[in-house]
Amino acid sequence: MPDPAPSPSPSPHAVPEGAHPFPYRHLLGIGGLRAYEIAYLLDEAEQWIALNRATAKHDDRLAGLTQINAFFENSTRTLLSFEIAGKRLGMDVVNMHAAQSSVKKGETLIDTAVTLNAMRPDMLVIRHDASGAVALIADKVDCPVLNAGDGRHEHPTQALLDALTIRRRVGRVEHSVVVICGDVLHSRVARSNILLLTTLGAEVRVVAPPTLLPPAIERMGVTVFTDFDAALEGAEVVMMLRLQLERMVGAFVPSPREYHALYGLTRERLRRAERNALVMHPGPMNRGIEITSDVADDLDRSAITEQVEMGVAVRMACLDVLTRGRRGVEGWA
Amino acid sequence: MPDPAPSPSPSPHAVPEGAHPFPYRHLLGIGGLRAYEIAYLLDEAEQWIALNRATAKHDDRLAGLTQINAFFENSTRTLLSFEIAGKRLGMDVVNMHAAQSSVKKGETLIDTAVTLNAMRPDMLVIRHDASGAVALIADKVDCPVLNAGDGRHEHPTQALLDALTIRRRVGRVEHSVVVICGDVLHSRVARSNILLLTTLGAEVRVVAPPTLLPPAIERMGVTVFTDFDAALEGAEVVMMLRLQLERMVGAFVPSPREYHALYGLTRERLRRAERNALVMHPGPMNRGIEITSDVADDLDRSAITEQVEMGVAVRMACLDVLTRGRRGVEGWA
Amino acid sequence: MPDPAPSPSPSPHAVPEGAHPFPYRHLLGIGGLRAYEIAYLLDEAEQWIALNRATAKHDDRLAGLTQINAFFENSTRTLLSFEIAGKRLGMDVVNMHAAQSSVKKGETLIDTAVTLNAMRPDMLVIRHDASGAVALIADKVDCPVLNAGDGRHEHPTQALLDALTIRRRVGRVEHSVVVICGDVLHSRVARSNILLLTTLGAEVRVVAPPTLLPPAIERMGVTVFTDFDAALEGAEVVMMLRLQLERMVGAFVPSPREYHALYGLTRERLRRAERNALVMHPGPMNRGIEITSDVADDLDRSAITEQVEMGVAVRMACLDVLTRGRRGVEGWA
Repeated sequence: MPDPAPSPSPSPHAVPEGAHPFPYRHLLGIGGLRAYEIAYLLDEAEQWIALNRATAKHDDRLAGLTQINAFFENSTRTLLSFEIAGKRLGMDVVNMHAAQSSVKKGETLIDTAVTLNAMRPDMLVIRHDASGAVALIADKVDCPVLNAGDGRHEHPTQALLDALTIRRRVGRVEHSVVVICGDVLHSRVARSNILLLTTLGAEVRVVAPPTLLPPAIERMGVTVFTDFDAALEGAEVVMMLRLQLERMVGAFVPSPREYHALYGLTRERLRRAERNALVMHPGPMNRGIEITSDVADDLDRSAITEQVEMGVAVRMACLDVLTRGRRGVEGWA
Repeated sequence: MPDPAPSPSPSPHAVPEGAHPFPYRHLLGIGGLRAYEIAYLLDEAEQWIALNRATAKHDDRLAGLTQINAFFENSTRTLLSFEIAGKRLGMDVVNMHAAQSSVKKGETLIDTAVTLNAMRPDMLVIRHDASGAVALIADKVDCPVLNAGDGRHEHPTQALLDALTIRRRVGRVEHSVVVICGDVLHSRVARSNILLLTTLGAEVRVVAPPTLLPPAIERMGVTVFTDFDAALEGAEVVMMLRLQLERMVGAFVPSPREYHALYGLTRERLRRAERNALVMHPGPMNRGIEITSDVADDLDRSAITEQVEMGVAVRMACLDVLTRGRRGVEGWA
Repeated sequence: MPDPAPSPSPSPHAVPEGAHPFPYRHLLGIGGLRAYEIAYLLDEAEQWIALNRATAKHDDRLAGLTQINAFFENSTRTLLSFEIAGKRLGMDVVNMHAAQSSVKKGETLIDTAVTLNAMRPDMLVIRHDASGAVALIADKVDCPVLNAGDGRHEHPTQALLDALTIRRRVGRVEHSVVVICGDVLHSRVARSNILLLTTLGAEVRVVAPPTLLPPAIERMGVTVFTDFDAALEGAEVVMMLRLQLERMVGAFVPSPREYHALYGLTRERLRRAERNALVMHPGPMNRGIEITSDVADDLDRSAITEQVEMGVAVRMACLDVLTRGRRGVEGWA
């Protein structure tokens, strides 16, 4: 059932009377957001899912605004997703790739940011390999900043698209049992997902080899496992993380084969989870390492391509919401 | 005479009554197309030649649609041509360059294709260095796929733009005598041109060193020569192929100098062809190797820059025709 | 005072009665332009400053036109600036990066230019590392060409944006005392600025180590200094040039430390200039080498980010003015 009806309203996370649904200038992370603010962004994304499935997929409410995607770290799919999201909303979108950028000429990050800002963008979408770099930039510019991934810190739109996928496929995020398996230590995807899912009231379990678990991760409100099979008991969602093979093998993981034996998701192992448990992966996948092809390609269980689709919708929602202030939408400062 | 009036109608390849002018979802190659289907695409391109010569060169019939150019193999001019074609028709165009892509992270081609598809494009334009890769992708996605060159297999829009150029400069493709000279073995340009020109009823001769001729090429309906001078007798069109110097010299060709002596097009040699024979080259040229500058730059004989112009028009026609079904144009499923 | 009111009219460089404000097809350099032609471009830019500060920053007067940015030399900020300028005026903008281009396959520059031209652009913006390359291309194409920097020759939009910045911050360019300090020998920025500023009647002083001064630079109408402190007496504008560290140290400059000691702009040294003297830099800066951070970041004195902002406005003005002929604007051939 890859494409169910939208989740039923009213949401358990309705915006309280008198509260603002999203009183922030930037989206730098999930940390600090309230449950109803997260739910508001998910609700807003629903309309864009529908638009994107139409042929003429344009809503020009952001026409005339300029979006700069400044990617200091390569990421084809995330960049494409943000570029498509902006263009479908009518924005003028330009990309800055770090590989060609002045950063290589020794310019400081702040100088690059201030330069981009002087071109009067209405939205900066930034990806950087250093945790905190995006917040640093947000502090220096006049327009909304959207974090498209910074170091090991956060990747908020990934967590939002994952939550939207869960909400649509499982029917709710609240009280769902979600297992996150893999390199939790280096993963901003895991971090943003943990923050989001626990805020919305899911039960989150993380499972990883001891070398790939951050110290004191329990303090984030998750249960920690090193045994994948044990973690899967009762799981409704199994979220696999990408193993960065080139960096991990040797240093953190003995061999891809051994990693797969202990932490790879197979059809066999998936049987330990709930019947119909949902399988997720942020992509790109290492087939045969963290996940087998029969699981990844099982349309009844795998939501992997749906995650990509939700990504565009969630990003459109964020671009719309974050620019309401400057567009003078009533009630948005 | 670089710019004659459009060819006279009616075409000898009119769409038969009751037949559909282009009943395909994708354009993966010329192979399998009927003469009237090819002629239909050429006829459609004529309107875009005129539009492109105007200043405000926009027709927004594809507004709101998303075109992804996924180039797994670099090609500046083909990418630019498709990008310009899409933008002039109002599409939101985004480019994915393989060099920055997840493919390098070990993702499979199919996973990349399925990911792009999940972003709900309305057109995928794909270039890949493996023959058949584009057809493989077409099989997995929900939108029309346009082959922008795959390995040694096909490059259909190149053949279409060449045919359009011939039709406009010679006045017809049917019964014209076309010589294709150069590295036929490795050339998808040659292959698509042979398929198209023989289908439209041209007489096609291929000429190459024996090492650069595919086995059993005669079965494609062409006459084979190894002597360029002999091949040129009566030729109305001389189509030179690019010699991929870096790969060919040593392995397939003794030296650039010797290649030029036997298979280079010079003013001297061109005299053996028909008076006013047309000279073509898909570019980029190795001047002094496969063609001399006096021939390439003779505006009365060379159609090389006109080929580039026809390229944009032909691609606009393909984008328009292939998206009619999803745009709900009557009679197009 | 980072943002004063526009400079008062009437300008001392009004277009004479009967004269055409900008009778050129291309913008290849500042050399040869009359004072009133330069002033006209600056006047035209004012409207775009205002538009760019609005949220919906679009004026579709160039809608339907195609702009190709052909950058044979990398430059993130200049490319972004031209891309944003074109998009805000409604153009279809496509970028050609040399790194991916056929130029690497041995194609001649002219063949590349003629190929781009055949795609029927309405504007070619070209950057090249060879002096004169842009003029060579302009000679072969049918559309206006805008020089975005060629070798050591010219970078006209940089000089225009610098002049616009001076005019707005100092109140006038005429009779202002401008010091240009740094690698004058290799700098097209210095060259275009000298041509523009002397034409508008500023007093220009250049200061550099003897190894970085072009021979006979005095003939350009500037006063030459090798002592920075002496040059600063009475200066109203101090324009620092970027030191290309990787190429200069050893060959032209003993060490970054010594360069800084003699030619670095510090708060201490800036005291020798006029009170409130304006500090400029084309970016990207080497902080601590040619300029110290306290000077660069002093918003009352430094116009560095304002220069970037003026860059977009000046480029919009150039795109507008240069395409008037083909758009059929009355009085523009």
